[in-house]
Amino acid sequence: MEQNSSSSAVARLAAVQNHLAIQPCFQRYAIHNDKPTGPADLARERANASFKVEDMTEVLLRGKENAEAVAVAFQMVQRDPDLRMRDGHHYDLTRAEDREQTMRQIARTVELKKTIKDPRLRQALFMAMAFYSESYSMRMYVHDMLFKQALLLFGTAEQQDKWMDDIENWRVIGCFAMTELGHSSNLRGLETTSTYDRATNEFVIHSPTLTATKWWIGMSGETATHTVAICQTIVDGENHGINWFIVPLRDPKTGRLLPGVTCGDIGHKSSRQGLDNGWIQFTQVRIPRENMLMKWASMSPEGEFTPSPNPVLSYATLIPERFTILTGSQVVLAQSLTIAIRYGAVRRQGNHDEQILDYQTHYTSLMPGVSFIYMLNIVDRELFDKWDQVAEYAQTDAGAFMREIPDQHGVSAGFKGTLAWYVTEVLESCRRACGGHAYSAYNSIAGLIGDYGVVTTGGGDNVVLMQQSARYLITTLKWAQEGQEVVGSVSYFNEYKKILSHNKTTLQDPRDLLNHEFVIDVLTWACAKKATELAEKLTEAGKANFDQAWNANQVELVRLADVHAWRYFLILYQRGIDREKNKSVYPMLRKMGQLMSTFAIRKHLDLFLEESYFDGSHAKLVRQLFLDQCKDLRKDAVPLVDAWTIPDFVLKAPIGKYDGNIYPAYFATVNAAQKSYDPPAYWHKYAAPLVNAPRPGEKKGCQC
Amino acid sequence: MEQNSSSSAVARLAAVQNHLAIQPCFQRYAIHNDKPTGPADLARERANASFKVEDMTEVLLRGKENAEAVAVAFQMVQRDPDLRMRDGHHYDLTRAEDREQTMRQIARTVELKKTIKDPRLRQALFMAMAFYSESYSMRMYVHDMLFKQALLLFGTAEQQDKWMDDIENWRVIGCFAMTELGHSSNLRGLETTSTYDRATNEFVIHSPTLTATKWWIGMSGETATHTVAICQTIVDGENHGINWFIVPLRDPKTGRLLPGVTCGDIGHKSSRQGLDNGWIQFTQVRIPRENMLMKWASMSPEGEFTPSPNPVLSYATLIPERFTILTGSQVVLAQSLTIAIRYGAVRRQGNHDEQILDYQTHYTSLMPGVSFIYMLNIVDRELFDKWDQVAEYAQTDAGAFMREIPDQHGVSAGFKGTLAWYVTEVLESCRRACGGHAYSAYNSIAGLIGDYGVVTTGGGDNVVLMQQSARYLITTLKWAQEGQEVVGSVSYFNEYKKILSHNKTTLQDPRDLLNHEFVIDVLTWACAKKATELAEKLTEAGKANFDQAWNANQVELVRLADVHAWRYFLILYQRGIDREKNKSVYPMLRKMGQLMSTFAIRKHLDLFLEESYFDGSHAKLVRQLFLDQCKDLRKDAVPLVDAWTIPDFVLKAPIGKYDGNIYPAYFATVNAAQKSYDPPAYWHKYAAPLVNAPRPGEKKGCQC
Ligand SMILES: Cc1cc2nc3c(=O)[nH]c(=O)nc-3n(C[C@H](O)[C@H](O)[C@H](O)COP(=O)(O)OP(=O)(O)OC[C@H]3O[C@@H](n4cnc5c(N)ncnc54)[C@H](O)[C@@H]3O)c2cc1C
Ligand SMILES: Cc1cc2nc3c(=O)[nH]c(=O)nc-3n(C[C@H](O)[C@H](O)[C@H](O)COP(=O)(O)OP(=O)(O)OC[C@H]3O[C@@H](n4cnc5c(N)ncnc54)[C@H](O)[C@@H]3O)c2cc1C
Repeated sequence: MEQNSSSSAVARLAAVQNHLAIQPCFQRYAIHNDKPTGPADLARERANASFKVEDMTEVLLRGKENAEAVAVAFQMVQRDPDLRMRDGHHYDLTRAEDREQTMRQIARTVELKKTIKDPRLRQALFMAMAFYSESYSMRMYVHDMLFKQALLLFGTAEQQDKWMDDIENWRVIGCFAMTELGHSSNLRGLETTSTYDRATNEFVIHSPTLTATKWWIGMSGETATHTVAICQTIVDGENHGINWFIVPLRDPKTGRLLPGVTCGDIGHKSSRQGLDNGWIQFTQVRIPRENMLMKWASMSPEGEFTPSPNPVLSYATLIPERFTILTGSQVVLAQSLTIAIRYGAVRRQGNHDEQILDYQTHYTSLMPGVSFIYMLNIVDRELFDKWDQVAEYAQTDAGAFMREIPDQHGVSAGFKGTLAWYVTEVLESCRRACGGHAYSAYNSIAGLIGDYGVVTTGGGDNVVLMQQSARYLITTLKWAQEGQEVVGSVSYFNEYKKILSHNKTTLQDPRDLLNHEFVIDVLTWACAKKATELAEKLTEAGKANFDQAWNANQVELVRLADVHAWRYFLILYQRGIDREKNKSVYPMLRKMGQLMSTFAIRKHLDLFLEESYFDGSHAKLVRQLFLDQCKDLRKDAVPLVDAWTIPDFVLKAPIGKYDGNIYPAYFATVNAAQKSYDPPAYWHKYAAPLVNAPRPGEKKGCQC
Repeated sequence: MEQNSSSSAVARLAAVQNHLAIQPCFQRYAIHNDKPTGPADLARERANASFKVEDMTEVLLRGKENAEAVAVAFQMVQRDPDLRMRDGHHYDLTRAEDREQTMRQIARTVELKKTIKDPRLRQALFMAMAFYSESYSMRMYVHDMLFKQALLLFGTAEQQDKWMDDIENWRVIGCFAMTELGHSSNLRGLETTSTYDRATNEFVIHSPTLTATKWWIGMSGETATHTVAICQTIVDGENHGINWFIVPLRDPKTGRLLPGVTCGDIGHKSSRQGLDNGWIQFTQVRIPRENMLMKWASMSPEGEFTPSPNPVLSYATLIPERFTILTGSQVVLAQSLTIAIRYGAVRRQGNHDEQILDYQTHYTSLMPGVSFIYMLNIVDRELFDKWDQVAEYAQTDAGAFMREIPDQHGVSAGFKGTLAWYVTEVLESCRRACGGHAYSAYNSIAGLIGDYGVVTTGGGDNVVLMQQSARYLITTLKWAQEGQEVVGSVSYFNEYKKILSHNKTTLQDPRDLLNHEFVIDVLTWACAKKATELAEKLTEAGKANFDQAWNANQVELVRLADVHAWRYFLILYQRGIDREKNKSVYPMLRKMGQLMSTFAIRKHLDLFLEESYFDGSHAKLVRQLFLDQCKDLRKDAVPLVDAWTIPDFVLKAPIGKYDGNIYPAYFATVNAAQKSYDPPAYWHKYAAPLVNAPRPGEKKGCQC
């Protein structure tokens, strides 16, 4: 800028002024309190819906009757003073209040379960409560899924007979003690022991070290009367590996800890304060032999230890636990997206006071998330339909069970990692989409993110699980290369040679990418390519250097697991919506699948480019298609979140209110939290002395 | 799997078992409480340092004297009962306690400032406190940076004379009221008015609507006695645009709100509870004419309004505010990374109980972050050296000031967006790196993330700022295309034709990428390419369709701003470390710059591939280099975080303890938070009735 005359500087400054978008404003009061634009905005969005919201709700909730039951269940929650918040905002509760409220809700639902005759409504009530409170749902989950499932999968018929009724009626409150302070992902490192005492026919449960302390155990902090604990089983000085034991923790009459049991509270957490995570130390706690869960491994009354036919069977419970990530993620994501989308349609910002949802950066960051929760919902069903069948085999056909477990394991590990990571991303997008107002606890998004924060590691650390998935892929590819037929999610390996022979895409027209089979072929190629390449590297390294070679390729192995998971996720989604083919909302379901297909390819675009499967023009076509699809779907953004029918009192976020009149509601919420307008006590202690200090030269006398 | 014999099933299951890594374990108690491995691990990492930690600290803190002052300042904080936490853990404080503590700390530092004679130590004390408490540092920031800076940049000499001493001694506690409930990014939409009353020579400050409520205003909730407020200035019925006014809020004697002023507390937030963010409504509040800040626009005693020579000048304060992102981010990131890196070196997990930091996935996710904080530190200085000079021009040479502002604006907007986004990513990596233990509030990472959560939108929403940067780029490119010379961060546009004529990289050897100029050339090509392509699209669309075309290319415009920002960030870093060329730590500083160069290219690899600037082999070479660089730097991971010299009591995270003996410390912290082992009050209300309910057939009498 050599010609730096002041006038040219002014001209340039004028251009900058334009960037800053600061120009004199002539009394443009865009959003009057008394003339809110939000309600009209949302009404218009709703009027323009390209599908019938109720029909979509029926797909999400699996039928009209369920949808009705859920509506009634939400009414129950809203009205029952033991279920609902009594006053204030959820995020103003202290930890102790939150704990008490959560237990109150549990006690009430246990009561209600007995009076509600319709199983549909019982189920709906649980679902409504899960949306209403993450801490409630986690307490239920720990008891019902972790503790009870352990008994179902590892307990004998007699053991189930003995315990099940107490568990179902919460006469026993159970927790699940696997993780220890020092170890979790690597179960082999667990330290807690269960030593068989032949003399008394008992097991002695013991935490030999500080790091052996069971840690994080949900409900052990304040409430659980029992736990299932995983322990190294020592018989006659020999370690028989890991088994499960039921250990009583508290006296049901008094709530006090039993002798030898020390449980403490984990204290303050990132979120989920209503759940009493705790730690447990066992000091020579004696339990009867019968408290070992003995479906697979067992100890006879005579003291004969029979190992499990295969240790893996004892971990089957981790598979459905991982699948439940799809269920739990819907709860958190559907709420966050409902808030972010509605706010996006109501909030106006920019040169022409646009609805912020109309900005390309905005809708491209949210619409894939919206589609994704639908996918989670549909694929959830596919997975559990299959799993229920497999779990049935566990009782009826051990051979079939063992045949199915490998793929179930591979899928669950990869899905847990891939999907939970993407959920985290979407949550962050929701947060950003709400600007500063997301920082208020009263708009709930921050809290939901806090709740979810554990999921990338809890229930199996994602990086660890992605490697389990990768290892499954490398192993099955090897089988296929050796000529064995492989089944399930990896069946494409049977044709890996043919797949790899097409080393350049046939993509010519963006419409090709709307075709499900076409997209799957593209992703299949990517999986086969990555898998063979990595398998080769590992083979080259040789057995002795396997671990080292694995580590040197870890990042790409994780990527392989990711591509594979997205591919199979898309397949299951298509399979799921095929069941809805003659529903009016099918085209919309399909559209969301198409967007997410493009999303998955776009996510790994560099891989396709790097291997020259795509050239630059293909990449540009994929990018443009993605933008177009997001823009198209944006039109239905509001109806798509409405279909989840989450009531305002559940959302607890005024900026996500159904009617769009967000500012008075937000203001009222903040106001209600402020108990008084008087100066705080500390004003007089710490502020007044500062602001009333004499100025230099002033007399001391003139202070207050 | 047609040959589904049970034996083949068992074989496959055995393979899966291998994936699950669950095998019988023979009494391997890897990490004994009484034989902790952590201290030895950290000692070994430290012994292997390839540079002298103290030398590095001196670079970070700008010299030995500063480093010593900081050490003393930390001692002051640790010992002074008004500065330090009195008991319990920070994340167990209630909101009210946190507020009180923060104000207590402020009152104490104001006192101390008067007694400390060494300016170095005064500065160091502020820095130490900023590390110790984010809420403290934000209260200070609001008063010292936002409120005081407004007076400095917009106030006349007389106004500065009148107020400055009160401000510096906290006889006035100031806040900064720009944002409103309804608007922020688009300042033109602000609604608060300042109407000139000719009769009394006063301004009447008024919030005409609910959405005009000033919102989020730090310290307005409970403590500020004054605010600077930005208002639409109405004179004789005409709107003269936005100006700044000093408005008293509270009676200094009583702390009570002044008539016409309504301030309330924003209540619970994602974090930073110690800062009293609030809202303000003005109802016909009268202030003397002299309270308008009149350096640029002014109102004469006779009621003559003189507009600012250029409205942009009034927003100069936003530029240093955005640069401070580099300072604030270091505080949060250096703590998070210190915790994550030390934990990574101490935590052992996996088949061979590896230090988790040795996993490729682990060190590749953390080492770029470690390098990044060094870059922030170095570039911070470069930016403020320049800005101080520019700010000086504001007082001395208006022409020079106006010449410099455009590039300062462009750089600050792009840096704020690009860098704050990446900080968010690194923080998430730190969280994941600590597994489940990151979920405990007592390990602080969750809280630091909560604190930082506001930064992607606060101080200017990132998406909005990235567009301001992009607009600056598109505009300056146009100037260059028209033959004008452009300067500063965009000077490469002067040669855009020559740059674009090399449309294929000359990269052949990974070592090329270790050369600073080579990398900058690569990134320069990318910027020029993206910018010309986007400029062309916008030009094609024509003026009438500009906004629409802008929106249709928004995602790529943001990307352009990102590539440009990384490029310039790398340039400034190299410029900064060139000043340290003869220091012993220079090679290490250079190494980190090299890693981040590769990082930046890898981040936009698809761009290079898409445009065939790179082919697949180049991409692979970049990826491999990145892995190798991370692995190499991993060796110095612990010393590199140690150099930040953050004491344990500041980190407040037992898993990040300096001595590596983390488990007993973590256990002790959790234990201290548990006040009693008795059952909680709610046990008797809600749990006891459940667990003591009679079984079917049991008599009622047997309950407690
Ligand atoms: C803890 C905290 C402290 C604060 N302290 C203060 C303070 O002391 N004083 C003060 O004045 N303010 C303060 N603020 C306010 C802060 O500066 C604003 O939150 C910030 O400017 C963002 O504005 P917004 O929240 O109105 O977001 P909006 O601008 O409404 O943005 C909402 C969403 O719309 C998107 N968007 C908006 N415009 C566009 C566009 N043109 N193109 C694409 N997308 C767009 C954004 O990306 C974002 O996702 C504080 C905020 C917080 C949370
Ligand atoms: C709120 C909450 C509730 C919980 N509830 C329960 C409960 O009720 N019962 C229960 O038993 N447990 C519970 N947990 C524990 C949870 O299951 C564990 O946190 C989880 O299994 C992860 O283990 P970890 O924390 O030990 O992480 P680690 O395995 O120690 O991982 C730490 C880091 O090392 C990395 N890492 C580890 N191994 C490898 C590898 N091989 N390769 C590469 N990187 C690796 C991880 O990616 C991670 O970044 C809970 C946890 C939380 C936070």
